[in-house]
Amino acid sequence: MSRILATYRVFAPELEVAAIARAIAVEQTVEVPDALIDERIEREIVADVERVTRVGKESSDVVLGFDAELACGHLNQLLNLVAGNVMLRPDTRLVDLALPDDFLAAFPGPNHGVDGLRALTGVTGRPLLATALKPRGRSVEHFARVAAAFASGGGDLVKDDHNLVDHDLAGFRARVRACQAAVVDANARTGGACLYIPHVMVPADRLDEALAIVLDAEVSGVMVAPLLYGLDTVRSLAARTGLLVMSHPTFTGAYVAGARHGIDKGLLMGTLFRLAGIDISVFTNHGGRFGFTRASCLRVAERLRRPLGALAAGWPSPAGGMTFDRIGELIEEYGIDTVLLIGGALLAHGADVTAATHEYRAAIESLCEPPLQ
Amino acid sequence: MSRILATYRVFAPELEVAAIARAIAVEQTVEVPDALIDERIEREIVADVERVTRVGKESSDVVLGFDAELACGHLNQLLNLVAGNVMLRPDTRLVDLALPDDFLAAFPGPNHGVDGLRALTGVTGRPLLATALKPRGRSVEHFARVAAAFASGGGDLVKDDHNLVDHDLAGFRARVRACQAAVVDANARTGGACLYIPHVMVPADRLDEALAIVLDAEVSGVMVAPLLYGLDTVRSLAARTGLLVMSHPTFTGAYVAGARHGIDKGLLMGTLFRLAGIDISVFTNHGGRFGFTRASCLRVAERLRRPLGALAAGWPSPAGGMTFDRIGELIEEYGIDTVLLIGGALLAHGADVTAATHEYRAAIESLCEPPLQ
Repeated sequence: MSRILATYRVFAPELEVAAIARAIAVEQTVEVPDALIDERIEREIVADVERVTRVGKESSDVVLGFDAELACGHLNQLLNLVAGNVMLRPDTRLVDLALPDDFLAAFPGPNHGVDGLRALTGVTGRPLLATALKPRGRSVEHFARVAAAFASGGGDLVKDDHNLVDHDLAGFRARVRACQAAVVDANARTGGACLYIPHVMVPADRLDEALAIVLDAEVSGVMVAPLLYGLDTVRSLAARTGLLVMSHPTFTGAYVAGARHGIDKGLLMGTLFRLAGIDISVFTNHGGRFGFTRASCLRVAERLRRPLGALAAGWPSPAGGMTFDRIGELIEEYGIDTVLLIGGALLAHGADVTAATHEYRAAIESLCEPPLQ
Repeated sequence: MSRILATYRVFAPELEVAAIARAIAVEQTVEVPDALIDERIEREIVADVERVTRVGKESSDVVLGFDAELACGHLNQLLNLVAGNVMLRPDTRLVDLALPDDFLAAFPGPNHGVDGLRALTGVTGRPLLATALKPRGRSVEHFARVAAAFASGGGDLVKDDHNLVDHDLAGFRARVRACQAAVVDANARTGGACLYIPHVMVPADRLDEALAIVLDAEVSGVMVAPLLYGLDTVRSLAARTGLLVMSHPTFTGAYVAGARHGIDKGLLMGTLFRLAGIDISVFTNHGGRFGFTRASCLRVAERLRRPLGALAAGWPSPAGGMTFDRIGELIEEYGIDTVLLIGGALLAHGADVTAATHEYRAAIESLCEPPLQ
């Protein structure tokens, strides 16, 4: 019988950890006093404490083994099982998950992944250059012009800022059509294959209508907020539309910003987002506007790429205050299968977005040139 | 023009708070360098720093004012606006929201609320007694028997444990029908009006089918996990089915378990869940299996009851290890408009669930007797 192994980092004195491990194993599966757990329930349902390892002065890693059947083959229940009530503990962080292949087989994963997005954009041998349309408050015509200018300058992906949200679907349709037309037109002139990626932020019961607008406009991809819609809603969206899906970390921070509870950033925004079918995971990089460690950011990339059943690898997109000066560092750290998302800094690089994009693109290419013979 | 006022508690030296307040105001609305913010965008889009108040040695309360139009009349965008990227800050916690009546007018809120659930159950003058069907691994017949025994003993609400999840909708249908029939049958014998509340935990794209099963079985209410489906999905579910909705805190803990980031427990599980149409908000009480403060738990109840546009008041349901001995304390703390959710302790109270329920119910009634003349 296949097992799901979940590793929790528990911040507690060593003598207390065994009892905490058992408490989590019971909480996540049966949530009853021991008196109500008979031998069969203990054997078949309650998670096993597989291993407890002291990893620091204040912390231990507890590995629990769950019968994979308990996850019922779907993402909502996987999260309920391994990250349900345990998230309420201020001293316990979910840091790793090992998912068996028979469980993973139910998940198609990213529709495009690394290879698919390279095929869509025609870009090889270098990271993709992306920007964001902002600030909110500018006109649709302005955003369409910026999108065209970015495409003309050699940019690869131009997405809506996550703050671009409309009062109704008519507003959304107008922006999607105008920006898509502008990018398609610029591509026709340059021979490029820049993609426009609208942000789909609508009430839950309007999501299908919004996606119909996207598909009708022949847009290739969308940006969505997995923690607002629910990860499994995004999984369903990806599976039924075939679209390229970029995730935005809005409303996700509470899981990753604490040191002692929540979920490891790499596990959530790498592994779990990939299960949800995310092709490009945007995350706030270290050294930007938010205080994340370099190691936690690199784990997102590593988790997007490591073998995970038959799922395609996803693209990390380190963001949140990235600048021209950091391109070399970003490529060195994250490698070429990376979406370099440079929003404000590119838009403010000069009056001419085409020229600024060209400059960024040239810098990326020169840093990725193959070494001379 | 109506405003949304959001209060953030910022943990930082006093001299840094003004800059942090401005950074959050920009991050949540336009997310661009100051050079790209012209006078009109500044006036119309960027949040205003309304007030900064030092509230502790290490913390200040920052009140930001947002044009309510920016929330576009829906819950997903409200959360994106006031709790989007700011959740990524390890030093900033959303602690209060003042929502204007014209924004609130779009939200019907709880379908039943305090008065509606009293009408459904016929119970006046005392808290409702609820229990949970568990542990996972027992048969449908077992759960139906327990549900009938609880109803026969005078219990008011019997819900599925959040760990009760099925591999397919056939399994869900079997449990819903059997437990509902058992409770209806017991009610017919006792003249009571106990309600069965199934846990709807299915893939996002099977939710409508699961709800059809619930409605077909003439069940009055469901339990759902707002943070797994997304709060706005729950809002939509409540609005289109008219069901009584009970929330479970699974996967919610990361927002509330940290002291310095995330969202105040009362604000999230009181105000925001009520916007999502939740009639009964189950939360882990202080002194149970989880480490929450008494004040934070009482805030959930207070937020469910305080005036909020025209929305009905919701029921707090303190849970997570509540016992017979604490009934008096729970009633004193939370008052009579409370759902006392006693799961494991009631099921383990003796071999006979009917007798145990009767004992709990009698204790509740004696504590709520009107004082003698």
